[in-house]
Amino acid sequence: MPRKVITFGEVMMRMSAPRNERFTQARHLDVIYGGAECNVAVALSHFGVDAAFVSAFPDNDLGQAAINYIRQYGVDTSRVIRRGSRLGLNFLEPGASVRSSKVIYDRAGSSFSELSPGDIDWASALNGADWFHFTGISPAVSESARAVCAEAVCAAKDAGLTVSCDLNYRSALWSPGEAREAMRPLMANVDMLIGGLEDADLCLDVRVEKARSRDGMGHEACEEAIAGLVEQFGFSRVGLTLRRGKFADSNDVSACYMDGSGFRRGCVMELRGMVDRVGGGDAFAAGIIYGNLLGWDGQRTVDFAVASGGVAHTFHGDFGLASAAEVEQAIGGGGRMLR
Amino acid sequence: MPRKVITFGEVMMRMSAPRNERFTQARHLDVIYGGAECNVAVALSHFGVDAAFVSAFPDNDLGQAAINYIRQYGVDTSRVIRRGSRLGLNFLEPGASVRSSKVIYDRAGSSFSELSPGDIDWASALNGADWFHFTGISPAVSESARAVCAEAVCAAKDAGLTVSCDLNYRSALWSPGEAREAMRPLMANVDMLIGGLEDADLCLDVRVEKARSRDGMGHEACEEAIAGLVEQFGFSRVGLTLRRGKFADSNDVSACYMDGSGFRRGCVMELRGMVDRVGGGDAFAAGIIYGNLLGWDGQRTVDFAVASGGVAHTFHGDFGLASAAEVEQAIGGGGRMLR
Amino acid sequence: MPRKVITFGEVMMRMSAPRNERFTQARHLDVIYGGAECNVAVALSHFGVDAAFVSAFPDNDLGQAAINYIRQYGVDTSRVIRRGSRLGLNFLEPGASVRSSKVIYDRAGSSFSELSPGDIDWASALNGADWFHFTGISPAVSESARAVCAEAVCAAKDAGLTVSCDLNYRSALWSPGEAREAMRPLMANVDMLIGGLEDADLCLDVRVEKARSRDGMGHEACEEAIAGLVEQFGFSRVGLTLRRGKFADSNDVSACYMDGSGFRRGCVMELRGMVDRVGGGDAFAAGIIYGNLLGWDGQRTVDFAVASGGVAHTFHGDFGLASAAEVEQAIGGGGRMLR
Amino acid sequence: MPRKVITFGEVMMRMSAPRNERFTQARHLDVIYGGAECNVAVALSHFGVDAAFVSAFPDNDLGQAAINYIRQYGVDTSRVIRRGSRLGLNFLEPGASVRSSKVIYDRAGSSFSELSPGDIDWASALNGADWFHFTGISPAVSESARAVCAEAVCAAKDAGLTVSCDLNYRSALWSPGEAREAMRPLMANVDMLIGGLEDADLCLDVRVEKARSRDGMGHEACEEAIAGLVEQFGFSRVGLTLRRGKFADSNDVSACYMDGSGFRRGCVMELRGMVDRVGGGDAFAAGIIYGNLLGWDGQRTVDFAVASGGVAHTFHGDFGLASAAEVEQAIGGGGRMLR
Amino acid sequence: MPRKVITFGEVMMRMSAPRNERFTQARHLDVIYGGAECNVAVALSHFGVDAAFVSAFPDNDLGQAAINYIRQYGVDTSRVIRRGSRLGLNFLEPGASVRSSKVIYDRAGSSFSELSPGDIDWASALNGADWFHFTGISPAVSESARAVCAEAVCAAKDAGLTVSCDLNYRSALWSPGEAREAMRPLMANVDMLIGGLEDADLCLDVRVEKARSRDGMGHEACEEAIAGLVEQFGFSRVGLTLRRGKFADSNDVSACYMDGSGFRRGCVMELRGMVDRVGGGDAFAAGIIYGNLLGWDGQRTVDFAVASGGVAHTFHGDFGLASAAEVEQAIGGGGRMLR
Amino acid sequence: MPRKVITFGEVMMRMSAPRNERFTQARHLDVIYGGAECNVAVALSHFGVDAAFVSAFPDNDLGQAAINYIRQYGVDTSRVIRRGSRLGLNFLEPGASVRSSKVIYDRAGSSFSELSPGDIDWASALNGADWFHFTGISPAVSESARAVCAEAVCAAKDAGLTVSCDLNYRSALWSPGEAREAMRPLMANVDMLIGGLEDADLCLDVRVEKARSRDGMGHEACEEAIAGLVEQFGFSRVGLTLRRGKFADSNDVSACYMDGSGFRRGCVMELRGMVDRVGGGDAFAAGIIYGNLLGWDGQRTVDFAVASGGVAHTFHGDFGLASAAEVEQAIGGGGRMLR
Repeated sequence: MPRKVITFGEVMMRMSAPRNERFTQARHLDVIYGGAECNVAVALSHFGVDAAFVSAFPDNDLGQAAINYIRQYGVDTSRVIRRGSRLGLNFLEPGASVRSSKVIYDRAGSSFSELSPGDIDWASALNGADWFHFTGISPAVSESARAVCAEAVCAAKDAGLTVSCDLNYRSALWSPGEAREAMRPLMANVDMLIGGLEDADLCLDVRVEKARSRDGMGHEACEEAIAGLVEQFGFSRVGLTLRRGKFADSNDVSACYMDGSGFRRGCVMELRGMVDRVGGGDAFAAGIIYGNLLGWDGQRTVDFAVASGGVAHTFHGDFGLASAAEVEQAIGGGGRMLR
Repeated sequence: MPRKVITFGEVMMRMSAPRNERFTQARHLDVIYGGAECNVAVALSHFGVDAAFVSAFPDNDLGQAAINYIRQYGVDTSRVIRRGSRLGLNFLEPGASVRSSKVIYDRAGSSFSELSPGDIDWASALNGADWFHFTGISPAVSESARAVCAEAVCAAKDAGLTVSCDLNYRSALWSPGEAREAMRPLMANVDMLIGGLEDADLCLDVRVEKARSRDGMGHEACEEAIAGLVEQFGFSRVGLTLRRGKFADSNDVSACYMDGSGFRRGCVMELRGMVDRVGGGDAFAAGIIYGNLLGWDGQRTVDFAVASGGVAHTFHGDFGLASAAEVEQAIGGGGRMLR
Repeated sequence: MPRKVITFGEVMMRMSAPRNERFTQARHLDVIYGGAECNVAVALSHFGVDAAFVSAFPDNDLGQAAINYIRQYGVDTSRVIRRGSRLGLNFLEPGASVRSSKVIYDRAGSSFSELSPGDIDWASALNGADWFHFTGISPAVSESARAVCAEAVCAAKDAGLTVSCDLNYRSALWSPGEAREAMRPLMANVDMLIGGLEDADLCLDVRVEKARSRDGMGHEACEEAIAGLVEQFGFSRVGLTLRRGKFADSNDVSACYMDGSGFRRGCVMELRGMVDRVGGGDAFAAGIIYGNLLGWDGQRTVDFAVASGGVAHTFHGDFGLASAAEVEQAIGGGGRMLR
Repeated sequence: MPRKVITFGEVMMRMSAPRNERFTQARHLDVIYGGAECNVAVALSHFGVDAAFVSAFPDNDLGQAAINYIRQYGVDTSRVIRRGSRLGLNFLEPGASVRSSKVIYDRAGSSFSELSPGDIDWASALNGADWFHFTGISPAVSESARAVCAEAVCAAKDAGLTVSCDLNYRSALWSPGEAREAMRPLMANVDMLIGGLEDADLCLDVRVEKARSRDGMGHEACEEAIAGLVEQFGFSRVGLTLRRGKFADSNDVSACYMDGSGFRRGCVMELRGMVDRVGGGDAFAAGIIYGNLLGWDGQRTVDFAVASGGVAHTFHGDFGLASAAEVEQAIGGGGRMLR
Repeated sequence: MPRKVITFGEVMMRMSAPRNERFTQARHLDVIYGGAECNVAVALSHFGVDAAFVSAFPDNDLGQAAINYIRQYGVDTSRVIRRGSRLGLNFLEPGASVRSSKVIYDRAGSSFSELSPGDIDWASALNGADWFHFTGISPAVSESARAVCAEAVCAAKDAGLTVSCDLNYRSALWSPGEAREAMRPLMANVDMLIGGLEDADLCLDVRVEKARSRDGMGHEACEEAIAGLVEQFGFSRVGLTLRRGKFADSNDVSACYMDGSGFRRGCVMELRGMVDRVGGGDAFAAGIIYGNLLGWDGQRTVDFAVASGGVAHTFHGDFGLASAAEVEQAIGGGGRMLR
Repeated sequence: MPRKVITFGEVMMRMSAPRNERFTQARHLDVIYGGAECNVAVALSHFGVDAAFVSAFPDNDLGQAAINYIRQYGVDTSRVIRRGSRLGLNFLEPGASVRSSKVIYDRAGSSFSELSPGDIDWASALNGADWFHFTGISPAVSESARAVCAEAVCAAKDAGLTVSCDLNYRSALWSPGEAREAMRPLMANVDMLIGGLEDADLCLDVRVEKARSRDGMGHEACEEAIAGLVEQFGFSRVGLTLRRGKFADSNDVSACYMDGSGFRRGCVMELRGMVDRVGGGDAFAAGIIYGNLLGWDGQRTVDFAVASGGVAHTFHGDFGLASAAEVEQAIGGGGRMLR
């Protein structure tokens, strides 16, 4: 598998209240680093893929800490640039039982958000790569980041890379109207689209008529959305995730996927006792990309991707840390004692 | 909402074994401070109510630590007195799965238990307040505390405050016979009664004939108990809680409530992955009081109170730390990711 | 209950990644000490039985730490010997949700594995005892340990002790073929056999024809296996455990048991939110032995043993730390608040 | 001592690497809240003074956490306002032995820095107070904060309060030139000046000619600086601190003080094994203010202030948490066992 | 060395604020168990002496935790009795640098303090022993404990044991007058006296005229005190400890010792970076007893005892955990890297 | 500075008892990974040098954890091989005050120790490098490792690299006689020798006649040893370290260095409050190599190296984590507050 994947986006320092504490109780915060696109690179690296990450970090000890954190997992960070004055932050108060998780973002003025076209030498950054992945968070961060994102997508397309995009709508960063205005033009250069079911509407204005029952997973609606996306934007592959659940550590996840051979419904993975609610969608995206790199059929690809996303919730932090073998083991029924 | 609530009772230092350890394993103990009546004040303060707490603390560094712990949450502690030689303690070994939680109380000779009538200047302590709340724990602690409790209730009634009482039967402190003898006379001055279903019998000798099925929540029996309580004691409002569950971190909670407009059954809140098993009843009481302060109808009041009690189990420590908005969010189905 | 039980086997230092971390994330490891046979002794000690443990530990600070760890729970360690160069180790990565637990053993060359016949003075070690317990792990550790095991079993039988064996098949230590070759000869001196359902085949070549349905517990197959074991080896008592579950912290456990009075099916204990996945089988064995020491009937014995095994999963570490009263409380429905 | 002190300034969330770790090693950060002016209020509150703190905090959970943190120590926070979008942050990497401590400030765009004249109702905020304290950090944070600072000082002077200022030069915020331009005009309304010896030059352009020997404390130079300050600005009281040391946890501290009765040299306090290097100057300022509130003579005042600053280094966090009695005990030779 | 030592006294649960925190800051407390006489038994056990401890513990989980804690270190706890309602507690706020350590005792009504003559079967408890050790804390705890202490000393003397006593004056428990009245009569049965220099006066009214200079260790005064003690009470051996220092973690310790061969001054051990300030005197006592059990000369005995006390300050908790070899290594200059 | 350095050796997982605990007290162990040669690579990487590390790791999760740990700091680990069955371990009990640190090695049978000539493709491993560094630990680990070491040194010399060796005598691995027999032949290919003063005798039989006074640093003896080494082996550069101190966290360190221009005595760096006693010599070696790579004169080189070694003791773990600028800052007097 000699193919190389490049992802591009922002990494934040995430500080989370430990042991179900509120911020008003916390006397220390757990620190990890992550961001949607970086998370994809790390998950791919664990699958054995040659993955590199492109971004901007401040030239201070916190920027260095973020880079060290990423490269420990084997992701190539030699293409990042050091500039700007601060690292983006977010504060996470993980939920518990019937209490929701809360995130306070503090990323304005970050090194990444202040990137401008020309700051990154894309010819060099994309050199030797086969695949380029970005998400809808980067264009949402700032106008200049949006321009860099467009620049990157064009460069990748010109260089003959496959381009994938995870819509990743974030209401804290923009409104659906803003998202649609920014995202729709970028789709022309996207080969594979990934997202949550709701993102199709929120980011691309593709609506679904099929009602989603309270208890169902929503595969029907999902297929309708995919059909709409393909019709409007001509994507060759689309994977949309589904999620339901009523407790903070308990979700059922699944997905629908379409490639040239038609629609596939992914397995439904029940998750109880999730460790970290962040990063499942990114590990799903990594799973879809991985299946494509290996030329798997659609069913195997989507089942693997669902499991990749599910298993990622069993790790503290944003990153999916499972090998491909461990992901497949979880499909067959996880949770045993291996000794 | 300019109304001020006063609560009166004992605060203990609670030392709990961390991470499901037994006391024989624990090399450190987590420390919080709390007590039924103080817990009500803290929950009300989080709802935006002006709440003050009256109690006695020893004049040493542990008494100061307890006061600091309480006032950080905005409760007015200017009315407490400093006297006596020790802070009441309890040691909690939280259960896990099929193992029950255990509490070792060590509160004999505490500053609170040695309070005598006249020690507190009730005219001053109740000044400016609209509501007075106490529980059945205070009269159980010692004879002199019982007398101070009677003194307080009379003073509150004389001063025109609404008086609420949570029965809170504790078998470690007294027998049902002792409880009934002490509690029944106090009821004459109580406007609103709160308790668990079993407390009606244990503290006030009001029995229920309706069988409670193993799987049901027990709303019918609860309504019967409320009817009996109203008939015997003439309370204008009564709220009784219901609880079922077979694992240490997994309960279903509900309640019945009666005010002038009749009986209301509260929503049933399923709780899985509870963080702390203590303090739910106190947050329920705070919810009932809050609904009354705001003039909500019975259904809204009891649903809010059930959710307040349920969400309180998602916080480490005795205190309910949710805002009113967060409580209402949990009614609608909690456990999501808010970002 | 003046009867004394001796158990014999290896104790390892177990280092486990905390808080659901992977080894690649862990910056510290939680340390406990344990081993199947020692675990049985500790559980029996908590039931009030006079229990002693025989083993070999290196004469260094880690060997001392292991001994101290065991004797804190009242097990007599005066019969252990100090020799050899290292303490056996294992590294545990506890699973979470759909992710399995993983164990890396590092026990080659341990003091125990280098024991040779004659190293232990069995006449002295067994002095005053009524019962001897060992497991299939000891013969699997090394050839010389196997010989010591045979030596011990003969000495125990000669001295008139009741001998029990827990098969405890470990695929990391040997193949089914090796296990059968080593274990079958030892059975001649075994009075009571304990194991998991699968162990009957893996260690003793006793196969079951009855299909085990995906959702059933497997009591029928279990009874068939017991019948086969009794027929082939003539055990007077056999207890086999059953387990099902799909999440790392969620299992249902049960067992079948046969003594002179016939087959008994143990209660089914549902476990959610298990704290530690190791040691349940050992606490089950302790429960069976305890019932026999007290002369309980088969049903009471197996129900107690199932609950003993279940409750052991609520404690951090390999050891069962519940008193007999606490085990019985869990049978009746655990998870309450005792205050 | 019925006198009330108001302090005004910014509070930051301080996240420090634990156990001598670098940021690149830290997987959690210890959290405290503090700021020079708030630290003075907290220290005064521990001395029994009625202290209130005025500031601006964002209306989010981090702002609330900061307020709760402050008010637990008895400081009146009812005068703070909630506005703006973020809480100022700083990241502290505490030094060890020969390695220096490092601070990364991340306070741009904080709620405090965006304060404008008119945002705070000074008549109300200063109501009932006798003393107003601010530091040179507030004017350094932003131009608008500088204007609010000037507004506050005028209002305090008009209302007849005593005004004290701690120069607190911070090179990360401004240059000496900028500092002088901003600070000199504010001095007209300042009664009592506090600072480090170097601050006199850096902020007010008052230079010293006496050489400070490598090993001496520098009392002579300090007296010269005070004389210059009094001559140029007419302060009625001046206290300047002195510090020397070559290890991160080891300093000798002292001070000079001048009031109407002349110069006083403070005791020299040797500190070994300091716990937290931040906040000593603030606790010194609190000590000087306290001595003035109580009408102590200059020698007692400066000795107490030096000890207050020294003892503050024995507490984790920015705050001085010692009572006046504990400070005095440390003057007499601390570090014993009181039992 | 087949000789057996019995010590008798109270064990408390000690809860200490971690990491230099004040009680007002602490969110957890470190737990250890200890008491002067038990500490002596544990230190002796580490030297290889057969040591047993006699005491009373409540029959609850905290009492069990204390017993487990002690017996892990090899001390025989089979002679303790279980009775009474609570375990004695103390809360320790360790000092730092110039800040003193503080202890809050909470031991009234403990199981030990409620012991009465006849509760312990001394014939059985002292069976097989050669040496009995107690301290001045036991008679100070309660009148009934004092009577039990007298009972024990007589029984020990009658049974032909050597009796040693550490005066251990505690101002929180009694005044010098009370101490003298209680302690002087007990001395008739004491063979060896141990204490701090000041204890001779505080407990036995033996005063010293020689001035102790601020910087000297005080060996002269110490010899004078020993001479007075021998003269008045006829002790055959006396060891008194000396201590000086001005920081919480920095002391110099020494001692004087007298046996039949005359006075010996112990080495002066400088301690910097002490880990735990409690238990040094007890480890000194253990050292003196150990030297006597082995028949060492006075100089070797006192040097070893000083080092034993010094090294004990390098362990968290009350206990001395060093082997005799490790103690001797520290005399020769400790603090190296042994690898 | 485009020069690339290769180091070769074993990395162990180091598990250390936290907070001054003994192994018998520790309930968790802090985990880091390190080894003398790897430590040099990491320190060089922090100075900005392109550093790669060659070694063998088992193909399990612990081997991966070690690799991740190293590569986070920017060291190139692409040249390591995965083979063998276990990772070498060591258990560290850090000393405190007068108590020495203790290490228990458990490295027999490690992947590194089982390396044989031919396992590593040295042509490829050394490709593009300018400098090769190894230490006396590798030849001591096993006979086959010794042969690989010889193979590596020859390959490096043939390829034209500069070769440096740190003697690093370890008494746990071999005797002086064995060391001399193995090390002396390797010296023929060594350009630069590094070691502690005692290593010259222990490993190479070069003795010193000058007495080293108790209080002196030993620069004279050091120069004599260097002269002897140069005379016997013809090294072009030699650096020997000196260390004295009597507390576990308190040392004075210095060194002598000789290059073509003659002898240089390094600065004496006093260290108080050291954080980690391991790795100072390796950071010294990195400093010497760094000075050579940059062409510094001998004095600057040795001063920098001494400071590099000293500052390394301020970091938890074996690694030196200071930048070159931070090392130079420490020379000038560290321990300040940089803000």
